[in-house]
Parts: sequence; C-alpha cells; structure tokens
Amino acid sequence: MVPPPADSHVDVLIVGAGPAGLMAATWMSRCGIKTRIVDKRGTKIFNGQADGLQCRTLEIFDSFDFGHRAWREANHMLEVCLWNPDEQGVLRRSDRVADTPSGLSRFTEVVLHQGRIERFFLDSLKEHSDITVERGVLPESITLDDVDAYDRKAYPITVKLQHLTEEEAIPAESKVHSNGSDVQNGLFRSNLAKDDTEGIINAAKKNPRAGSLETVKAKYVIGCDGAHSWVRRQLGFAMEGEQTDYIWGVLDIIPVTDFPDIRMRCAIHSENSGSVMVIPRENKLVRLYIQLTTTEKGEAQYDRSQITPEMILKSAQKIMAPYKIEYTYCDWWTAYQIGQRVGSKFSKNERIFLAGDAVHTHSPKAGQGMNVSMQDTYNLGWKVALVAKGICDPSILKTYQSERRKIAQDLIDFDHKFSRLFSGRPAKNILDEEGISMTEFKDTFKKAQLFTSGIGVDYGTSMIVAKEGDSTAQGDGTNVSGKKTQVAGKQSLSSVIKIGTRMPSFQVINQADARPWQFQEILKSDGRWRIIVFAGNIKDPQQSARVHALGETLSQSESFLRRCTPAEAPIDSIVEVLTIHSAPRQEVELSDFHEAFHPFQKGIGWDYWKIYVDDMSYHEGHGQAYKNYDVDPEKGCIVVLRPDMYVSWMGDLEDTVDMQNFFEGFLLSVN
Amino acid sequence: MVPPPADSHVDVLIVGAGPAGLMAATWMSRCGIKTRIVDKRGTKIFNGQADGLQCRTLEIFDSFDFGHRAWREANHMLEVCLWNPDEQGVLRRSDRVADTPSGLSRFTEVVLHQGRIERFFLDSLKEHSDITVERGVLPESITLDDVDAYDRKAYPITVKLQHLTEEEAIPAESKVHSNGSDVQNGLFRSNLAKDDTEGIINAAKKNPRAGSLETVKAKYVIGCDGAHSWVRRQLGFAMEGEQTDYIWGVLDIIPVTDFPDIRMRCAIHSENSGSVMVIPRENKLVRLYIQLTTTEKGEAQYDRSQITPEMILKSAQKIMAPYKIEYTYCDWWTAYQIGQRVGSKFSKNERIFLAGDAVHTHSPKAGQGMNVSMQDTYNLGWKVALVAKGICDPSILKTYQSERRKIAQDLIDFDHKFSRLFSGRPAKNILDEEGISMTEFKDTFKKAQLFTSGIGVDYGTSMIVAKEGDSTAQGDGTNVSGKKTQVAGKQSLSSVIKIGTRMPSFQVINQADARPWQFQEILKSDGRWRIIVFAGNIKDPQQSARVHALGETLSQSESFLRRCTPAEAPIDSIVEVLTIHSAPRQEVELSDFHEAFHPFQKGIGWDYWKIYVDDMSYHEGHGQAYKNYDVDPEKGCIVVLRPDMYVSWMGDLEDTVDMQNFFEGFLLSVN
Repeated sequence: MVPPPADSHVDVLIVGAGPAGLMAATWMSRCGIKTRIVDKRGTKIFNGQADGLQCRTLEIFDSFDFGHRAWREANHMLEVCLWNPDEQGVLRRSDRVADTPSGLSRFTEVVLHQGRIERFFLDSLKEHSDITVERGVLPESITLDDVDAYDRKAYPITVKLQHLTEEEAIPAESKVHSNGSDVQNGLFRSNLAKDDTEGIINAAKKNPRAGSLETVKAKYVIGCDGAHSWVRRQLGFAMEGEQTDYIWGVLDIIPVTDFPDIRMRCAIHSENSGSVMVIPRENKLVRLYIQLTTTEKGEAQYDRSQITPEMILKSAQKIMAPYKIEYTYCDWWTAYQIGQRVGSKFSKNERIFLAGDAVHTHSPKAGQGMNVSMQDTYNLGWKVALVAKGICDPSILKTYQSERRKIAQDLIDFDHKFSRLFSGRPAKNILDEEGISMTEFKDTFKKAQLFTSGIGVDYGTSMIVAKEGDSTAQGDGTNVSGKKTQVAGKQSLSSVIKIGTRMPSFQVINQADARPWQFQEILKSDGRWRIIVFAGNIKDPQQSARVHALGETLSQSESFLRRCTPAEAPIDSIVEVLTIHSAPRQEVELSDFHEAFHPFQKGIGWDYWKIYVDDMSYHEGHGQAYKNYDVDPEKGCIVVLRPDMYVSWMGDLEDTVDMQNFFEGFLLSVN
Repeated sequence: MVPPPADSHVDVLIVGAGPAGLMAATWMSRCGIKTRIVDKRGTKIFNGQADGLQCRTLEIFDSFDFGHRAWREANHMLEVCLWNPDEQGVLRRSDRVADTPSGLSRFTEVVLHQGRIERFFLDSLKEHSDITVERGVLPESITLDDVDAYDRKAYPITVKLQHLTEEEAIPAESKVHSNGSDVQNGLFRSNLAKDDTEGIINAAKKNPRAGSLETVKAKYVIGCDGAHSWVRRQLGFAMEGEQTDYIWGVLDIIPVTDFPDIRMRCAIHSENSGSVMVIPRENKLVRLYIQLTTTEKGEAQYDRSQITPEMILKSAQKIMAPYKIEYTYCDWWTAYQIGQRVGSKFSKNERIFLAGDAVHTHSPKAGQGMNVSMQDTYNLGWKVALVAKGICDPSILKTYQSERRKIAQDLIDFDHKFSRLFSGRPAKNILDEEGISMTEFKDTFKKAQLFTSGIGVDYGTSMIVAKEGDSTAQGDGTNVSGKKTQVAGKQSLSSVIKIGTRMPSFQVINQADARPWQFQEILKSDGRWRIIVFAGNIKDPQQSARVHALGETLSQSESFLRRCTPAEAPIDSIVEVLTIHSAPRQEVELSDFHEAFHPFQKGIGWDYWKIYVDDMSYHEGHGQAYKNYDVDPEKGCIVVLRPDMYVSWMGDLEDTVDMQNFFEGFLLSVN
C-alpha cells in the first residue's frame, strides 16, 4: 500500500471501494482530480455478491474502455424461460421471452461476479491515475464547516481516518464472506482469475501506518459505504421503507441436473413450495435464488443462523421437482430477507454525498442493486470533478439528488411489486384471489425490461437538462433550474434523441478513414461536454452555408466555447464538437468543413476523428443513423450531450444564442 | 529474469523471441510443453518494425484469446486509394478499393506496431504458463545426435547458451533501434503503452547468470532468429534468391499535411519521382514507405550510411507534390533494399526447425513478413507439441516443410511482381513500354488480396490433409502421405468448406443458452483435433437415427476417440466433438442428443457448450450457417479440423470407418 502524501488535503475523499465507490474514483482518475479512496475491508471481493450487468452499465463501462472485458468474460443471458405448474400441478415451461428487448442497446444483459467488475475498475484506475484503494482504513469522525459553496479553495470537510492493524482488517474481510466460508475450500481459488491471487497474498501484508490515526481535509466526500453506511449515520439521514418476512437463499453452484433450462435465466413458480430464479453464470456456475418461506408477514421467524447451503438446496429440489438438482462444487452462498428502503437525503450541503446501497436497498433478484449504485456515482462523479476543476458552477451538484433520488424511488416501487409477484403462490385459477396471476407476472416482467435495463432513465428538467417543465416538480422538490430564464431545447427535432435520456447509438463512418463506429464508442467518459452537429446534406450549397455559419459562430472569441477553454488548451478540451453529415462519403473531403469541425493543432495537424458520415460501410452495412436517430437528413440539428452521455439540449443550426444561454447557465468563463 | 531450472532438459528450445518465436512459445504454453525461449536482445521491441496484421493472423490471435486486444488497439484500414498522375502529370486520386474484400473473414486488415503484438504474446504466456522470455541469452553451439525419430525419451539436441553481461546485451538492443536513435527522444516514451515502461526499466537489471555458459539438452529446437539466423547458419542451409537496387525509406510520423487521404492506405505513383505507400497507424501515426531510387539495377549505390529522415521526407515531398507534408514528431525510421530470398530447407531431421525471417525475406510493403512468420510457427507449434506429448506420430512433422515452404515460395513470387509494379514509373500511355500500367497495378493489387489476407492458404494432400493428389507433388517433394493407403475426404459435400484451407466462420447459436457465436470463436487453439458434426435436421426421425448411430460409433471402446484418450481424461481431451444442427432451436432439447455430443462428467454435469444450432438469434440476426457453409441442411456431414483450424477430412455421417482410418494415420493409441 502506498502511504498517503504528507499533505493531507484532497479534492475528493471516497469512503467505500465497492462498485459505487470505484465508479466515483474512475471519474476522478479520468478528470485528473486529487482523490483518495478508502475501504475498511482488508481485500477486495473475490466471488459471490452482485452479478447482473445491465445494458446501460455496459455502455458506461465501454465509455471508460473496459466494457469489452466484461462483455467477453460474462455469461450472456439471451432468453428467459418461465416455468409454472400446469393444470395438473406439474412444472412446465410456459413461456420463452427475450431477456433484453431488441433495439434497446448495443449490449444485452450479462452476468459476471462483482469481484471481476471491481478488478476492471482497479486496473483502469492504475492505467489512468495514481489513485489506489487504501484498504483496512476506517473513518472515525467527519465534520463539515459552514462555507460558501462557491469557495473553491476551501476544504470544509475534516475526516479522521483510522488505519487498522492486520488483526482488525482481516476479520472485517472474512465477515463479508462469513456465510460462505465453509465452501471456500481449494476449489474456491481455482475459480479465481490469476490476477486476484496476488490480491489475496497482499492482503496479508501490513499497512505501514497500521494502528495510526490521520486527519484528512477534503473539498468533497462521497460515502459509498453500503447498506450500513457509516457516513449516512454520521449525517443522521434516515432510510425509509419496510421489509417482509420472505426469506430467500442464494447458491452459486456448478449444478448437476436434468432441468432442461439450467443455462437460461428462469423464473420457476412451484405449485405450493415457493419460487426459484435461475441465473446462469460464467465458469459453468449457476446462481439460484431460492425462496425459503412462503408468506409475506407473520410467519414464525426462521432461525437465520441455522440456514445452510444444504437446507437451501433442499428447498430448490422441492420447488424444481420432478427435475433433479445436485452439486459437488459451491462457490458462494447467502440468505437474505426482502425489504425496500430509500434514503431521505442524498447529500449534505452538496459537499458530502451518499450513493449506492447507502441510500437504497431492495431485493437482488432483478439484478439492479450494483447497477443503480454504479449509476449513482456515474451521475455524480463528473459533476464533482468539473466543479472541483472550476469548469462548472457548483449549483449543478444539486441535480445529483434531484436526478438520482427519483431513480431510487422508482427502483423501490418496482422491486416492491416484482418481489411480491415472485414470492407469491401461483393462482390455481381466476377465482383464486390470494394467488398470483402468472399472466400478470409475465406482463410485469416484460414491462419492467426498459426500466431494469437502465436505458429508461429520463432525468427531469434542470439547468443541465433543457426541457419544458418545473424543475421543482421532480425528485426531491429542490429548485435545480439554476436561474429564472430556463432554456428549453427543441424536442421536436427528433423522436428518438430525447432530452433527459442517454444518447442512443447507431453506426456512423469516419469521414477520413472510412472506419465504422457505433456512435457511443466516440462518446468517451472523459469529462467533456459535447456538441453533436447533425450537419445534414452538406453537398447542398444552402445547407453547407448553414453549417459554415455555425462553424464561424463557434469560432468567435466571444463564443462560450472559446470563453470556457483556457487559452493554452486545445479547443476541444472542455466541449468537443462532433459532426455527422448525411452526404455520400466519397463526394466529400474533410477540407469542405469549417475548421471548427476538425480543428488544426500545431505540430499535430488536422484532427481526423471529429467528422462522421451516415453512409454504407465496407463490411458492416449501413448504419442508417439519420433514419434511426429520426433527424432530418437535409437540415440536421444540434444535440448537446452531458459528459455522462445524457441529452441536455437540442436546437436548429441557427439556435446558437439559445445554446450559448444554455451553456452559460453552468459553464464558467476562464477567458 | 527467472533462473532456468537446475535440470537443463527441455522438450522445446526456441531461439528468438520475435513474433514467430513467441507464436511457437504460445502453442507450447497452451499444450503444457516444457519450453524455454531465449533472445539475444536485452529487451523487447517498443516501436517501429512490422505493423500490418492480416485477417488470418487476427483469426489466429482470436483463437488464442487476444485477437480483441489487437482489434481494439489497431488502426483499421478499410479503403485503399490509388493516386496517379493524370494526363497533365498532376497527381489525382484515380481509384478507391476496399482494403479487404467483403466476406473473406470476420476481420479486416489492421495496423499495429510489433511491440504491442509482442506484448499480447508475453501477457498470454504469463497467463497460461510459466514460460518467460530469457533475454540477453545467445546460443553458442548446437549439435544434433543421430537418433530414432520415434524415440520420445531422447534429447538429441545439445545447445550451449551464453548468458550475456549487461554491456553485451544492451548494445545488441540499441543496435536494433540504431537507425531511429536520434528521434527516440522524450516523445518516444509518450507513445509507449504503460506496461512497456517497466520493460525498459527492467532491461537495465542484470541477469544473475550473466557471463556464464550453460548446456541445454532439447528434444526440439525452433530457430526464429531472423534474417541473419544463427541457427540457419549452423545448419548450413542456404537462402536462395536475389535483390534489386531499389532503396526505400520508412518514416513513422505524425504528419502535418493537406494530402486528403492521409488516413487511408494509399499507393501513390508520381510521374517521375518514384512512389509512396501511405499506411495510417494507431496513435495518430502514419507510416510512409518512400522510394529513394528509381531504377531496378545498375544505379550508382546510395551511401546508405548517409540516409536520414530529412532526406527521406524530401523524397516524399517530391513524390506527393503539389500536396505538402511535414512532421514535428517522428517515432521511428529506417531504410531497406528490396530483395526476395527463401531458405533451401526448413528443418533438419524434423528435430531442428527454422521459421519466419530465418527462411524468407522480402519487401515489407505488402505487410506480409510478420504475418507469414507467425503463421509458420502457428503451423509448426501444435505439431511439435502433440508429438512431444505422444498424441501424434512424429511423421506429421514432415508436413511443416511441405506446407510452409510452398507458402514462402508463393510469397516471394508475389512480392517480386508487386514490388516491381510498385517501384516502376507509371506508363505515360499504352506505347510507353518501360512504364508500368496502372491498370495492371490495380488488377494485381486486387487479385493479391486473397493471398495477402492469409485466407487463401490451401495446404496440399498429406497424412493430415485428406484430399486427392500426390503428396510428393507439392512443396519440397517430400512424401508426406504417411502410409500407402492415403485417405481422401468427400470434398463434394461443400463448396465452401475446402479440405486444406482454414474453416470459415459463420454465426451459430448455442442450443443450451441461445447465445450467438461466430463459429471460429468456439475453435480455440488448445491443441485439440475437432470433429464438427453437421447434424442436419434432427427433428426428422430418420436423420435423428443417423446422428444417434454416429454417437454410438464414436462411443464404442474400439473407436479412435476412446483409444487416443487416456482413460482418466475427459473424453474431449484429445479430439473434441462439436455439433451444429439445423432444426428450430425451440423445438429441440439437449437431451434429444446422444451423450457423445454433450458428454456428462461426474461432479460437473452435462456439457452445455458442444451443441449449436443454425437459427435466428435474438439480437444478431440469422447466421444462415448451413447455407453459407453450403452443407445440406437435411443430411449434414462431418468435417474434421486440425488443431490449427485447417480442414483435414470430410465425409457423410456413415463414413466412420474412413474417418477412423484417417485418424489412425497419425493419432497414437494410448488404450
């Protein structure tokens, strides 16, 4: 472990190095923010825990350049099979449904255990920064001074950190795995990727500062320290919600079975013995979520300390009969009680933030927890980074709570409904009012796909989401309009690119080298805002003149683009302009475009990676980007994207004053 | 550097850790062969050198699980632009051609410098074995005892290895880069991937055995030690061929230019000043091949020691006028004289082998050198490994020379023709007989694409390529038929799957989990032979019975499958059976198939990764595998693939005796 610098001032301190904390750290690494991240556990996660990766999460990973690692290693789930009792009460496959609806994303839902996902983050942090996770480090106190939100030089947060001794850190680690400890035998290590073996060995090494206490001054703190969040408890924020008596067990096993759909995602409702969800995983593993109790409330409590993998397996065998299921190898197991709770507040004075399990807990079966948690800090990270760098106005930080608390609430509501449908006994017939209608289950499941994929997220109006509406009407009631004259973009220019949602992806071709790209591949998470110029048919002289005029306006010294970019920095450092035109590629040269669309840099020459075309590729077909984006192929439009790929503003090529007003609502001038 | 084991006996000693040597080592790592690989250079390559990766090379990389790394990092070349003088002698773009013809492969030609490719191999070796490259190690003598080729216990080769001191090793390294040393300044390191920085630092560390001499006994030696091969010189084998006076310069620069196609691959013929080839590369780099002399023979020799990057640039400027080209950053440069030579023999007694530049040298402009070199050892590696393991008969080793020397000869012939067309002055008109016809150039270029992609390789008949013909008629005249009654497969069963060529790839769907795969993705390079059962329409009872009968035959204790597989090993250890059927996926269950097609293993259960179907996928369309492979969708057929993916034998489902005869020609019984 690298000892922290003598100067104990940091821009951002992240507490908790699970997926939410690592996502926050990853933003900081890409934006060059001085950051520390601490975790009380002695090592990272190696197996078990959360496993589902939703489409939107994969898009985000890809924007950080490690989506392909998850995509390659993960098990892909393509089909969901629903199994229900038939009229004779015999288990039958009643339906097959696509796991991810067609056309939602270029990714589909996949499954990979949390340990690998943490590994991707850690490798990425190492590649892009000097940020390392400091393990065995526990915060002991936190105080927040009352300062001006705009005082960029202030470090208003003081945190005392306890560096644990080996004895203190390792038990904390084994506690995480305690349920599964009796099955983590020799086989356990054989399932590890090689790079984690080193982690286990290093875990035993002593922190040179072990046993000491340290004081850190921070501008911002992000608490990603889980359901029992220490940071949340210090702030005194409540978790609101309820829990049921339904108890579920989880087994990660290599199943030996004659059940035909063991490599499909399955929802199995037995006649009277409860339900099983089958989640096929990487490395021949299958996760089974197995219902252990069959009533919502009032049942005599299970003695949870008595739950064993053998007991959970017996429940599965009963539910899945007449099929047989056994295992020799169990990778991990646990048991949990279903409950749904959401944090009352997500931030204190926009200086201390909470994210992930610290502000929402629910059942794991929809594969949402880790995804929504990472998406919390994906939403928060760039905002904190750009404010810390003096690029954006601190008022944008209010949009974290307004945007994400609503998502958490939606998640809780969905989970409440879905869990009860899943845990209930199937109705024997339409008169069986206590039973669950399997038709309703299927409908709920299918309707939920847009939500569970993460693609359905639609942020409300605010200073960074220029759409009609009252900014106080959404989320927590905070005014996030920034100033009185709120700008609204022209949503009418496309029915597909929706202000408040993430930019969809279709194939475009690089003008300079004819290479096809999914457009999202160009939208890297590097902290830059983006102006997407749909330049339309630039072979048409009139359209070409419109595009040229836009280039002129963007290049003027009083344009926001010039004013927000330091004089010595490349012009695309803060806001990048990307162009997609619709004329035939071979009839257009890069030099037909104004320099604003492909800047020239001394010593480096022209930029060949800014202008794209909607045309036929040599090997990947035609992306039909204008058609798919529903943008006028003659006249085009402008779309502004936030650093997290969400659509902020839209307008015609002439709407540059409106665009300038939009940007000036939060972008600070440096010139 | 890990000190070599006290026991200095190895199965395989590889001399030279360039791409050819690393490919050989990679096979050994996947097959568990005790191997050492030594290189006299103190460090690996960091920039410059070879850069083109052809389709077939990418398929091979993918079969070793690192194709995606090259594919992601490389620059993709999609279009070739031909530039020629027009009637007024002014340079014009005359043609645009697809760089890789459609449908040839799932990959297209890409460009990435040799240092990264070596990195992928090194990472892969580390992940799969304990083989590490021993640098600064130079062979001093080699002797080969006369032993029975079938004596598996013998170590007939004795090699003395000199461990160089730091002073000896590092000058050898800097010699490699000597041409470019004056431009490898601070910018040089900025172009390095982070993981190579460590390599540079470690290069300075001393080999603990430096200065000492060591004797190694080996079963096989593979000499991949380049154009000046020490191994070849010890064997006394000649290089046959000639060279021209054409001198070319190479610049790897970030160009500052108004030439419109600088990010396309271009062939530029000027009126009188020679030619330039433009190869756009990763990291904004462009490689220029620039002709420095314009006559084939007899011209006054350039003083090659006087060649500088500035001089090469001036030539480029002259050729590319009226366009301007400059640079601030040069990554690497060199100059070379065109020649074409091929080794007289590729092996001594099938115990010492030569590969790569050690047996063929030619001009670099067709991007063939590194590819053909790696494909040499891709052909050789599995043969040596399977013989060393006692799985295959040593007589298969003769096919290395018979198969690869013919390829080398084809390459030399192609390069001879292509180089002259490229270096010659364009004809002014059809009466200009000394000039080169630009139409002929374009035609040659297009015709060559099948060859240069590496996909065109078609190995002649031999004991491991069961097709009609005389095995002595191809290559070097060696008899590689193995025994008198040579088997020939039924080529008539498909016009697309051709005996002697590599198996093409189309999309199929896993029966058990509905996941789509490119079929080649299933064909990992792990040393296993494969039987691909095109099971046809197994919903048809008659066809189902045929398939079942095949399963029965394969499962009998006297089948070659049982006899070649050690009793305690899984049945798919030596020969893997993979099935593709054509019935609708949702109407078929895995249990409809004989166990031979999805083996059951105690403790692990059924194998869900053996049976595939040609059906519609949820998100990736329909692969139309039967149609694309041109296999009868009702009756199917059997295709046998070598461990390197080349088609060996084909037959009907009933041709099991013929298949058994084929396998018994080289597969050794262990039971």
